[in-house]
Amino acid sequence: MLDISSLTNKQIYLKSSPKDKLLEDNFEFKNSKVKNLDHNQVLVEVVYISIDAANRAWMQGRTYRSQILPGDVMGGYALGKVIATNNNNFNIGDYVEGDLGWQNYAIRDAKELIKTSIKASENLHMSVLGITGKTAYFGLGLADLKKGETVLISAAAGAVGNVAGQIAKIKGCKVIGITSSDEKAIWLKEVLGFDGVVNYKNDNFVKDLRSLCPEKVDVYFDNVGGPIFESVLFAMNNFGRIICCGAVSQYDQASPQNGPRGVPGLIVTKRLTLKGFIVMDFNEKEQEEAEKNLLSWINEKKIIPAEDIMNGLESTPMALIGLLNGDNKGKRLVKIK
Amino acid sequence: MLDISSLTNKQIYLKSSPKDKLLEDNFEFKNSKVKNLDHNQVLVEVVYISIDAANRAWMQGRTYRSQILPGDVMGGYALGKVIATNNNNFNIGDYVEGDLGWQNYAIRDAKELIKTSIKASENLHMSVLGITGKTAYFGLGLADLKKGETVLISAAAGAVGNVAGQIAKIKGCKVIGITSSDEKAIWLKEVLGFDGVVNYKNDNFVKDLRSLCPEKVDVYFDNVGGPIFESVLFAMNNFGRIICCGAVSQYDQASPQNGPRGVPGLIVTKRLTLKGFIVMDFNEKEQEEAEKNLLSWINEKKIIPAEDIMNGLESTPMALIGLLNGDNKGKRLVKIK
Repeated sequence: MLDISSLTNKQIYLKSSPKDKLLEDNFEFKNSKVKNLDHNQVLVEVVYISIDAANRAWMQGRTYRSQILPGDVMGGYALGKVIATNNNNFNIGDYVEGDLGWQNYAIRDAKELIKTSIKASENLHMSVLGITGKTAYFGLGLADLKKGETVLISAAAGAVGNVAGQIAKIKGCKVIGITSSDEKAIWLKEVLGFDGVVNYKNDNFVKDLRSLCPEKVDVYFDNVGGPIFESVLFAMNNFGRIICCGAVSQYDQASPQNGPRGVPGLIVTKRLTLKGFIVMDFNEKEQEEAEKNLLSWINEKKIIPAEDIMNGLESTPMALIGLLNGDNKGKRLVKIK
Repeated sequence: MLDISSLTNKQIYLKSSPKDKLLEDNFEFKNSKVKNLDHNQVLVEVVYISIDAANRAWMQGRTYRSQILPGDVMGGYALGKVIATNNNNFNIGDYVEGDLGWQNYAIRDAKELIKTSIKASENLHMSVLGITGKTAYFGLGLADLKKGETVLISAAAGAVGNVAGQIAKIKGCKVIGITSSDEKAIWLKEVLGFDGVVNYKNDNFVKDLRSLCPEKVDVYFDNVGGPIFESVLFAMNNFGRIICCGAVSQYDQASPQNGPRGVPGLIVTKRLTLKGFIVMDFNEKEQEEAEKNLLSWINEKKIIPAEDIMNGLESTPMALIGLLNGDNKGKRLVKIK
């Protein structure tokens, strides 16, 4: 039987709140002993940590979860394996998901953990079948997509964006992506089948966007906010829908900038609908259905899983800093074990 | 029989596009002869002109209608009476509505006119039963109101706002208004039955707003945009709805300001829905049903018609300039005949 007291837990703490851009120096590593389990607690060994732009937003203030403050173990969604349990619903060897944090071992109350409900390889649970893939799935579900409509996706090479684009293609839409490099643009078109991609760092961004969307934008799946959101607002069709999924352009700085011009004026004159959502609002049945559909699309080769995997707990801070800088192609994960 | 050629039509033209705030000097008066009617045309004598903040927005650019440019007769929705007709669907004496413009007589194609469908006094057709009253009605219809929710309304003493507030009361909601003077605040509470009103010109606006909405705002009916929109965004409840009806704070200036901070970040974290709409998107049957319901609420004294009537075509420019300055209490009309 496992001797819990023999385990050393390497943990990453937030040392200081970032003042502007996140730095490696905002984190520190500490080792601790793993404590004994209380009633209903489960000990989980972390397998894959999901790296998400939201991790940075959590440092800015209270969102849908409490703020992460200096002295806290850095939060992060992760896949893990149960290695000890004081709750009958969990067995040793079970795969579980939850906010396990940036560490090797996490003790969690049973109610904080979700057992993976579908059989698939470990990495898929944190990518297409994980929060980011389901975010794409649920977000597009709010958009009332019609065949032939033009769907525009920002941060298209990101974990959510690439899946959103592939789902919109399955639904028969014309899919245009916005990304930050010509290399990612080529990858999105040639590997993932996007109909067109614009690089927002090019001088001609707005012109390029308009020429790729001659019939304007019916649905905008927004992951970035900021100036790109503003440009797109002016390119929307009447009765267009904007799915507000994230605002990554606003996370890695001291305080949010001014909002987009045209809010709310263009919302009125173009009769737009904007919807914000987060994946946790959907219930267990909806989550399972999403995973089932996503997995069958993967098996049918309609969705190509795009993953960007780094190795070892030590690489976690740089994995997030790089993601905020747009370095990743697809879902960034850190493999811990 | 009427001798059309004997009629002199006094008309108000846009002389120059306003550079910033609208001035009387942006308009000029001219007299013209009334022309003979072509096939399917109808001659209408204007009875009441509706004064709307949107009139100013029409000078800024193309909206849901073409821009009004120097040299155009000033556009404006109005009630009129048919005095000659070359179309069989219209009879002399019929009351009609449409964009008749700022003038004594308008010649319009039959298809540009709507016959008033419900019997009521002339003024009601341009106030509670008119575009602004129906705008309030349809807008709240998009908000999925639940009894006991807190509904916040900006420009609450305006033509749309006062009706929206009275409807939300009928639906069992707690209704808070935002207005620009303490006098209008008292009127809204004591005459129209609002539960609370804040004056946004007070230094304590944000604090006052929060203390009147201790359970935060479930539905925000926005007529103003700008800094008020931004303040309210931060006071919204999770899963709140924002009905985007207009942006009067943005109309009377050279170009729109920066948008509200927190867009789209707060839309995501609070899971808000924003909906833009205009009254013309609703079909004839929906319009008739709206008028029927509004009239019965008036008859049941559940809605008190609030009108602010000026007299004579000459007063029309100042009626609009004053409205943009927040001078009106309720629906501003100009009685022409």
